[in-house]
Amino acid sequence: MKKSVAVLLANGFEEAEAVIFIDIMRRLEIHVDIISCEQTTALASYFQTPISADVLLADAASKTYDAVMMPGGPKGTDSLSANPQVVEFLKRHIKAGKYICALCSSGAKVLAAHHLLEGRTYSTGDKLADKYQDGIYLDQDVVVDGQFITAKGLGVSFEFSFTVAHYLLNDNPQTVDHQANHIYFKHWPQAKQVIPCQEKH
Amino acid sequence: MKKSVAVLLANGFEEAEAVIFIDIMRRLEIHVDIISCEQTTALASYFQTPISADVLLADAASKTYDAVMMPGGPKGTDSLSANPQVVEFLKRHIKAGKYICALCSSGAKVLAAHHLLEGRTYSTGDKLADKYQDGIYLDQDVVVDGQFITAKGLGVSFEFSFTVAHYLLNDNPQTVDHQANHIYFKHWPQAKQVIPCQEKH
Repeated sequence: MKKSVAVLLANGFEEAEAVIFIDIMRRLEIHVDIISCEQTTALASYFQTPISADVLLADAASKTYDAVMMPGGPKGTDSLSANPQVVEFLKRHIKAGKYICALCSSGAKVLAAHHLLEGRTYSTGDKLADKYQDGIYLDQDVVVDGQFITAKGLGVSFEFSFTVAHYLLNDNPQTVDHQANHIYFKHWPQAKQVIPCQEKH
Repeated sequence: MKKSVAVLLANGFEEAEAVIFIDIMRRLEIHVDIISCEQTTALASYFQTPISADVLLADAASKTYDAVMMPGGPKGTDSLSANPQVVEFLKRHIKAGKYICALCSSGAKVLAAHHLLEGRTYSTGDKLADKYQDGIYLDQDVVVDGQFITAKGLGVSFEFSFTVAHYLLNDNPQTVDHQANHIYFKHWPQAKQVIPCQEKH
């Protein structure tokens, strides 16, 4: 069965972090719902690229996905963190054992801020982890700890996206390697080497 | 004076190639006009991420930018190449000595197809160059030959974008290096080393 991912966006989201992830998922035939956590599907990104979501969180709140992804962007992660519906959506997916994939500031400002990591290791934007007690920050591009896949920021978006795909498509990891090669992304072999050997906990 | 870039998009454009480039430019305070080469600003990307342009080509056709950028995406570059207004826009910018920045299939299918390279070296998606007489294909991630900056595809979008920024901001290249570091993009030092020593022709 086709895997599915929810991408949670709020105004001010980092557009390239979101679009790289969505693009790589869709190239690999993973279903993506771009979910607006605002009142409308028309969103304003960090650097003003007009991007629309597929659906409102209110209309997708009861659905369950194989993974939930959040990009960074200062105002975007402020809004995600302040939204009880987002926190509830994450808690439900954590409880169901789904992958929680947080890029850039969302790791610290959404996951750690709401004590969702419960002592897991994670990566996030520099110095953001200092503000929160939850989670153990690792100074790595991408960190995988059980169902949590986190990464530093925009410049490691491809590494992060291929890592998420590697876990979602663990019955056929060759297709992920093939796609990295197909798009001329040369850094996946090295990035892949630092993924923990054990698959999902 | 602030530098300015025109990004030419047609339905089917590779969304992450476009959005990474736009994001990096705007982070570096380079003005970007996202220009639709269709009848409306609402565009359909290669993998169905709804992204809107700022302006129609018809309304921007007389403006002159410091650089013109085109992403790949099979149908997108088919449309750009078939659009006489796009070819005219490119010719005018080439004549004015502006940077022409073509990522992925746009190098072969737009520039070489219309004999705009005039014997310059360039990079583009694999095997596409075989179809055209114009230009000398180099099997490199990014190729800079005078005012032409070309690159292979999606996986080298950051290298391509920082290379374009390096030339546009050649009075202050440190700001480009700083931004690459700020977003945790580790591959810019190596990518920068293969840029020809001579700055603009």
